Amino acid sequence: MNITIIGIGLLGGSMALAVKDKYPKARFFGVDASVVHGQLAVAKGLVDEVLPFEQAVPQSDLVVLATPVNTIINLLPTVLDALPWHGTVVDLGSTKETICAVADKHPRRAQFVAAHPMAGTENSGPGAAFRELLPGKNLIICDREKSNPDSLTLVESVFRDIGMKLFYMTPSEHDLHLAYVSHLSHISSFALGLTVLEKEKDEQAIFDMASTGFSSTVRLAKSSPAMWAPIFDQNRQNVSRALADYIQFLEQFKAAIDEQDLGQSYDFMNRANVIRRVLDGIEKR
Amino acid sequence: MNITIIGIGLLGGSMALAVKDKYPKARFFGVDASVVHGQLAVAKGLVDEVLPFEQAVPQSDLVVLATPVNTIINLLPTVLDALPWHGTVVDLGSTKETICAVADKHPRRAQFVAAHPMAGTENSGPGAAFRELLPGKNLIICDREKSNPDSLTLVESVFRDIGMKLFYMTPSEHDLHLAYVSHLSHISSFALGLTVLEKEKDEQAIFDMASTGFSSTVRLAKSSPAMWAPIFDQNRQNVSRALADYIQFLEQFKAAIDEQDLGQSYDFMNRANVIRRVLDGIEKR
Repeated sequence: MNITIIGIGLLGGSMALAVKDKYPKARFFGVDASVVHGQLAVAKGLVDEVLPFEQAVPQSDLVVLATPVNTIINLLPTVLDALPWHGTVVDLGSTKETICAVADKHPRRAQFVAAHPMAGTENSGPGAAFRELLPGKNLIICDREKSNPDSLTLVESVFRDIGMKLFYMTPSEHDLHLAYVSHLSHISSFALGLTVLEKEKDEQAIFDMASTGFSSTVRLAKSSPAMWAPIFDQNRQNVSRALADYIQFLEQFKAAIDEQDLGQSYDFMNRANVIRRVLDGIEKR
Repeated sequence: MNITIIGIGLLGGSMALAVKDKYPKARFFGVDASVVHGQLAVAKGLVDEVLPFEQAVPQSDLVVLATPVNTIINLLPTVLDALPWHGTVVDLGSTKETICAVADKHPRRAQFVAAHPMAGTENSGPGAAFRELLPGKNLIICDREKSNPDSLTLVESVFRDIGMKLFYMTPSEHDLHLAYVSHLSHISSFALGLTVLEKEKDEQAIFDMASTGFSSTVRLAKSSPAMWAPIFDQNRQNVSRALADYIQFLEQFKAAIDEQDLGQSYDFMNRANVIRRVLDGIEKR
């Protein structure tokens, strides 16, 4: 089986490592816009060789689109055009509505499976890839009824075999949930980083006074703008709504503090504490 | 040497464990409003015995005020009244202006040292205490010139001996910096938890779709309202200003997303990425 990973970064590279473990005879081709990323990916053993798109895709049984989401919508039609008749393409993008809409217009839509692994770190590039990123995490598959049974089976098997748990939903459900559970926390973290950096021109002062709590909350502010700008754009309606909700809670919290309404701020925090139950589950996972 | 810890929770208990390690002959008394916390603290070996305030303080060389900050301002004058003439009281509160203002009104002000360790977790109570919480972290001491040299030396020695790095500033500098570097990140996390819980009435859905990134950003939303409500209140002017700055960045970010100004959101994230340098330092510390 030939597998082509387009975009051999954190996600594509980690997937290659995990799949290689389970399918030692599979052959991995890498396609990447960056020559250096390609070299690193081969040197690190993420893929067997780097090939041009035109050579890799036509001889692939499975193509994995692991680029930023703006590149996914550009490449997906071309991949479907170049794929052999029995081949399958799966994407790992963090948005699903725009990507699925692009796929729906293609005559070979059934060879595509829309997927999104609930995993990542604030780092990017082939150097950040590691075998343990995906196993044990959840994978969301969208519009499964639009994929042909063989393509769906192939994708489900590969992800199950590397230890992922599969969930199914529509692209619009996916994008709505993700706006709250993932995209919003990235923006809250980016904005927190900005606010603190803007105020504390002296980085040493932040460093001296920040505790591990600050570090944890602002960690996602290290994330790649090239990856996230197109995600926020493709999911802008849901993200904008989530941000409006978030800002409203912050305004209410601020009012409670300004008015010295300790009962109200106590109540906000008590309600937020419920998140402990959810987090304890995630951490034990 | 007799040391009394008033409030034997995460911070007071962790300090007792670390100090015990370095001063095995010191005797530790615990004072706590909760009988159960007292029992747990003795059972866990955080203190040698639990005593009523009136018995513990008059026989103490060092009293550590490790309660929520509203209780600190209530107890501090009483501790100074009851302290032997050679005794010292240090507080570990997360605000400093209000506490130092209360101390300044007391005739025995010089026996007080105002301190704040840059350490904590989202957990509280004696069960959460652990020996490694304070060593390696930073301690801020405020208004050191108002403490008598012996009291200052005692406090500095104890904290240096358990491996903390000491910094000095005024109470108003402390409260301003902390509003940005600590208090704001707690509020951003509480509000994120609230927003997501409000939207996703189904906790299972959050659980299924949340990644470790969400978990890290929202971790502080588990923090104790009883501890944080009085902190936000005592530092309300700085916290309110920090929140206003934060909300402004979020509004600008939202506008960039709404207007599909990818250049602008790219720029925001790029500027926020600078936080990586600071965080890499904190994590290596």
